[in-house]
Amino acid sequence: MSEFIVDILGCGAATPSMRHLPACQAIEYKGRVMMVDCGESAQLSLRRNSIKFSRINHVFISHLHGDHLLGLPGLLSTLSLHELEGTVHVHIFEQGARMLQHVLDVVSHNPTINIIYDIIDPAGGVILDDRSLRVTAFPLYHTAPCVGFRFDEKPKLRHLRGDMVRFLNIPVSKLAEIKAGADYVAPDGRVFENARLTTDADHSGSYAYCSDTVFNPAVARAVEGVDVLYHEATYGSDLEKCAGARGHSTPAQAAEIARMAGVGKLVLGHFSKRYPDSQVLLDEARAIFPNTVAADEGMKIVIA
Amino acid sequence: MSEFIVDILGCGAATPSMRHLPACQAIEYKGRVMMVDCGESAQLSLRRNSIKFSRINHVFISHLHGDHLLGLPGLLSTLSLHELEGTVHVHIFEQGARMLQHVLDVVSHNPTINIIYDIIDPAGGVILDDRSLRVTAFPLYHTAPCVGFRFDEKPKLRHLRGDMVRFLNIPVSKLAEIKAGADYVAPDGRVFENARLTTDADHSGSYAYCSDTVFNPAVARAVEGVDVLYHEATYGSDLEKCAGARGHSTPAQAAEIARMAGVGKLVLGHFSKRYPDSQVLLDEARAIFPNTVAADEGMKIVIA
Repeated sequence: MSEFIVDILGCGAATPSMRHLPACQAIEYKGRVMMVDCGESAQLSLRRNSIKFSRINHVFISHLHGDHLLGLPGLLSTLSLHELEGTVHVHIFEQGARMLQHVLDVVSHNPTINIIYDIIDPAGGVILDDRSLRVTAFPLYHTAPCVGFRFDEKPKLRHLRGDMVRFLNIPVSKLAEIKAGADYVAPDGRVFENARLTTDADHSGSYAYCSDTVFNPAVARAVEGVDVLYHEATYGSDLEKCAGARGHSTPAQAAEIARMAGVGKLVLGHFSKRYPDSQVLLDEARAIFPNTVAADEGMKIVIA
Repeated sequence: MSEFIVDILGCGAATPSMRHLPACQAIEYKGRVMMVDCGESAQLSLRRNSIKFSRINHVFISHLHGDHLLGLPGLLSTLSLHELEGTVHVHIFEQGARMLQHVLDVVSHNPTINIIYDIIDPAGGVILDDRSLRVTAFPLYHTAPCVGFRFDEKPKLRHLRGDMVRFLNIPVSKLAEIKAGADYVAPDGRVFENARLTTDADHSGSYAYCSDTVFNPAVARAVEGVDVLYHEATYGSDLEKCAGARGHSTPAQAAEIARMAGVGKLVLGHFSKRYPDSQVLLDEARAIFPNTVAADEGMKIVIA
């Protein structure tokens, strides 16, 4: 069963269109939900994808352009309207936190949830670090201060070999440390190497999100080796100058980042509404990085 | 050709659901568009209804609950992103104007439109009065300060009878005053009464919008005689106490207002998401006021 899934809730640029909603993703991770950007219509998309609002406990906002955050006041108000309790951490630039709280002070009169603003440093750094996951922000290069996010699962426990556990009659009290990699010392002093008692841990998944950025090799270093990279590809190469002027990338540039970073898979998104479908953008990227797909609303990407 | 149409863009209560979007309407009046409340997803609904953003020149916000206004920051940012120019009047309570401008200062960096905040007095009064239309705010009775809006077309010009104009050879310079109701004095001094030269003017339409309110006879006086009354009917009569406690009405109460006010037609809306369809609410209202319909997204109501 997958425990690390990215739901694409919106992958359009700038404004909602008939084809795409503004930037919004939900990362389903071990039962909890983390929002990554939160464009308008986030609530509706969560419902369409049957994602329970009560599971949301972190929100990461890459930058303060409306298409990446204007769904958040409504979502947070709704949590209180539904009388949900608990804590939601909003990771956002300081100016955004002040703005958001001002809106909530006006529209949400009886807040039941506890909102904690975790102010993001535009220079990046680790912004969440718990038992199983580390989230890192890193600079992107847009027309406004902007960061990408990298989600790395921590190493997982090894799988016990049931046959060996039974054969050696290993006490339950020893199993946790063996799963963590320890050898087993039997009561008679014999040492059984961990490799004989366990099989490899499951893969630790990793995902990176690059919302809005021009091409910059520093981005490739920040996302090096992730399983899946979501990277904006707002305009095709025919509009490369326009893309650059507006702080955006082409599919070829996104693919070049994916290639340089040695990622497993590239997901293109943040499509300008000038493109009636994403095939032309996808073709351009695949010429450089074949394992590329185009995001679409409702798409689920299994990371691990 | 109808020149006064109400587009229902959202008629759900509180939060977006799979069935209804939050409160939002567009009044198409002689080529321009006035938004009446502006819940999240307003932009998407405008596109679905093929209503050009550039035609919007007035926005009326009934109160400062999120489901009635959180689509507005995105809509106003988009006008500037599309480099549209012109003036948009936002009629809103003062606290809402401050909040909205704070959001726009953060998310909309190069505003091209000119936003004028016309602060609404919670006690009501005329808020727009031009050559052809008068808009009046009037108090509603909700859990927060709230107003309804009444839109009255001014009397229209009478229709000239072409046969009489030709027969009497009336000069073009006289036609405007005759359409306005004047008699015609021929060069030989004969007086032709207006009633012989013209037929009745088209009906001047009127529409009233009651977003969120408990039952109060003062509301019936404010909406007296309108052609169409949109009135919230959040909960059925089985939940009348709950409706009252939350500042809302039942369909029976909405219908009673319609009956007392002698309106032409009642449109129910602001449905709680607990109702899988609106038939039960509609039946309840029709028992009191038969000419009632239930709003739905995409519905167009011709006022005049």
